[in-house]
Amino acid sequence: MRRRLMKSSDCDASFFSPENEQGMRLRWEFARQTLNEMNQWLFDENGQVGIYDATNSTKTRRRFVREYLENLGIRVLFLESIVNDERIVEQNILATKLNSPDYRDRDAEYAVRDFKNRLRNYERANEAITEDEGCSYVKIIDGGKKFVLYNLKGHLQSKIVSYLTSVHIIPRLIYLSRHGESEWNVTGQLGGDPPITRRGEAYAKRLSEFLQREFRGRSPPTVWCSQLRRTWLTVRHIPTDICICWRSLNEINAGICEGMTYEQIKRELPDVWEARKADKLRYRYPGGESYLDVIHRVEPIILEIERQTKPLLIVAHNAIIRSIYAFFKGLKQEQVPYVDIPLHTLICLRTRPYGCDERRYKLLRDEVPLDRARTPEPSDSESHPAATSLSPASSCGVAERVWFDDIESIP
Amino acid sequence: MRRRLMKSSDCDASFFSPENEQGMRLRWEFARQTLNEMNQWLFDENGQVGIYDATNSTKTRRRFVREYLENLGIRVLFLESIVNDERIVEQNILATKLNSPDYRDRDAEYAVRDFKNRLRNYERANEAITEDEGCSYVKIIDGGKKFVLYNLKGHLQSKIVSYLTSVHIIPRLIYLSRHGESEWNVTGQLGGDPPITRRGEAYAKRLSEFLQREFRGRSPPTVWCSQLRRTWLTVRHIPTDICICWRSLNEINAGICEGMTYEQIKRELPDVWEARKADKLRYRYPGGESYLDVIHRVEPIILEIERQTKPLLIVAHNAIIRSIYAFFKGLKQEQVPYVDIPLHTLICLRTRPYGCDERRYKLLRDEVPLDRARTPEPSDSESHPAATSLSPASSCGVAERVWFDDIESIP
Repeated sequence: MRRRLMKSSDCDASFFSPENEQGMRLRWEFARQTLNEMNQWLFDENGQVGIYDATNSTKTRRRFVREYLENLGIRVLFLESIVNDERIVEQNILATKLNSPDYRDRDAEYAVRDFKNRLRNYERANEAITEDEGCSYVKIIDGGKKFVLYNLKGHLQSKIVSYLTSVHIIPRLIYLSRHGESEWNVTGQLGGDPPITRRGEAYAKRLSEFLQREFRGRSPPTVWCSQLRRTWLTVRHIPTDICICWRSLNEINAGICEGMTYEQIKRELPDVWEARKADKLRYRYPGGESYLDVIHRVEPIILEIERQTKPLLIVAHNAIIRSIYAFFKGLKQEQVPYVDIPLHTLICLRTRPYGCDERRYKLLRDEVPLDRARTPEPSDSESHPAATSLSPASSCGVAERVWFDDIESIP
Repeated sequence: MRRRLMKSSDCDASFFSPENEQGMRLRWEFARQTLNEMNQWLFDENGQVGIYDATNSTKTRRRFVREYLENLGIRVLFLESIVNDERIVEQNILATKLNSPDYRDRDAEYAVRDFKNRLRNYERANEAITEDEGCSYVKIIDGGKKFVLYNLKGHLQSKIVSYLTSVHIIPRLIYLSRHGESEWNVTGQLGGDPPITRRGEAYAKRLSEFLQREFRGRSPPTVWCSQLRRTWLTVRHIPTDICICWRSLNEINAGICEGMTYEQIKRELPDVWEARKADKLRYRYPGGESYLDVIHRVEPIILEIERQTKPLLIVAHNAIIRSIYAFFKGLKQEQVPYVDIPLHTLICLRTRPYGCDERRYKLLRDEVPLDRARTPEPSDSESHPAATSLSPASSCGVAERVWFDDIESIP
């Protein structure tokens, strides 16, 4: 907001000085306008949780924010991050501030010096939250080493705390993959618990070789798979100390459509076909699940992934990998059913302070179209309002690597 | 442990004085023996979380406990409850200590005085946990108004924190009921989404009348039901401000057995019938769920129930109500599939500092056997190792009330 309303070059540390009256007045104005934008989203677009990220570091400012929002019936939870550990401060400036729009045309030395000055201005004016302010708050101390929770209320605040106590700032690798080709990928049938084919087995071996190469001399990643055998057959060659089979990672339950092909559904259950095509996110297979159900089911797994500090490989299914991938890439729920997750491709996400870097490794050549052999999944190949913003991985800045220099010949 | 090793009458507040050397020595001995018992359970019986509830209020004692357990590979999380609010202290003594074995034959005045003396002894010797002890801890301040979390590690500690931040000490009512009789209760078919019968509808009306009578002049309970219509048809007459339909409250998914009767399963799928009979807790219907899956699925609902401070009515299904009931009554997982939850009976639990009081209201006469009309559920009517400890409600100290003074005649 500040950056939008002022020219970026106007703004150095002095703008943030508590003695700069014009700066102070402008910052109050920005606060008011930003709150208005957030409320518009909460009320007009049915938002659930608005994050008002600003320097709410004085009692006066917090009282203003709280009264303003509570008058509109919005519950307020303050999050205060306190860092006493100097190493965390410096790492954070280097990792996040150098690319900030405020420092785009400045050198690193200037940025670090200016941001440290800005921090000193913040510190001079800073009044830590105290109990007598009567608000609900969470203090996050030294990046999650310690938490203080005060006056928490209700389901949402409790979920926010679960999330905050799970995330951490240590960068790490998350590998995602669908299982190797299964017998039902070949016949185009949905769900079930089929074994993998010879090509699927070839992928399983390539996956293991690839990871052994990547982790030579280091301990291998933790491995998670579903409770369906096409996933644990895919991971069985990987040398790992920990392999966990989660039921929550099982493929979307297609209910009465389990075992059918898309062609069959289109022909025999045209209502199901049309309804799913019209709203692939919310449509629930009779006796089964919707994508929204899957997203909900995967939520505890997301928290577990956040908690990991070591490299992790997850081998699961199309709908599951789509949901996990979408979370880490910050995609909207509407986009989840259309994310492109091809078979025999390993996705590697590296967590960053904001978002994730991504690489894709194609570990096996597509000799014939592998899955969805007969009829494409509803809407997958058609234009869809939510799908338009998603282009194939190779054209949206994702580094895709083909990695079959020493591939065995596969029948 | 202390009470087992000493005669109860030997033990007054002076035993807990830090100057009482013999008392101190004995208490160390008790600590060691109790830890041994806990470890036996953790290792020999595959326990997951052991709770070592004792006066670990000095740094020396905590170091001893931690070193002892960590040497065995057990992670230690200390929970420290600090109460500054005098009202909570007194309420707690009155609510919990009067019935303690230490005060069984003493009057209330003696008990309160002695326990306050004991508290003063604790306070004199008490050293609050500090960060430099290097352990993981949770401080619970004033019964959950404030929490301090330090150095939390891993999945289990995070789940413990979720639980601690959800529970509270305000007593309240939890009403549990299965839906009114459905058409498939009459035919004996499993699962599905059938409507309720005329008798089911009569129960729905009686339930509403009963609650209106109970809550005359007060705000009615919050109502939760499943997303299957036999539950929301059962609650629709109840005047309530909040009614939530949870998918997590849906009946156990019987997979390929949905729509079949037990008789049919016994005849057409004898393997399924026998396998489920042999291990009703762990047996998973092909394409469906096991009781263990249901218990897992209901877990987030349990946290939500714990969080409620106002009266709550849950109308759901046999396996679901069994799981919730078993949690609040402290039953073992093995007992869950055998808990007796009859149709047309309202169970009322009132939370207490330890456990729950229970009343059952039979709101509709059984004119004919209502559900499981043909073949009984596997093992329900047969003796089972886990079932032997469960007797019918009426004979195990539960107050059952029949409440049909003004019942309509039902065809």
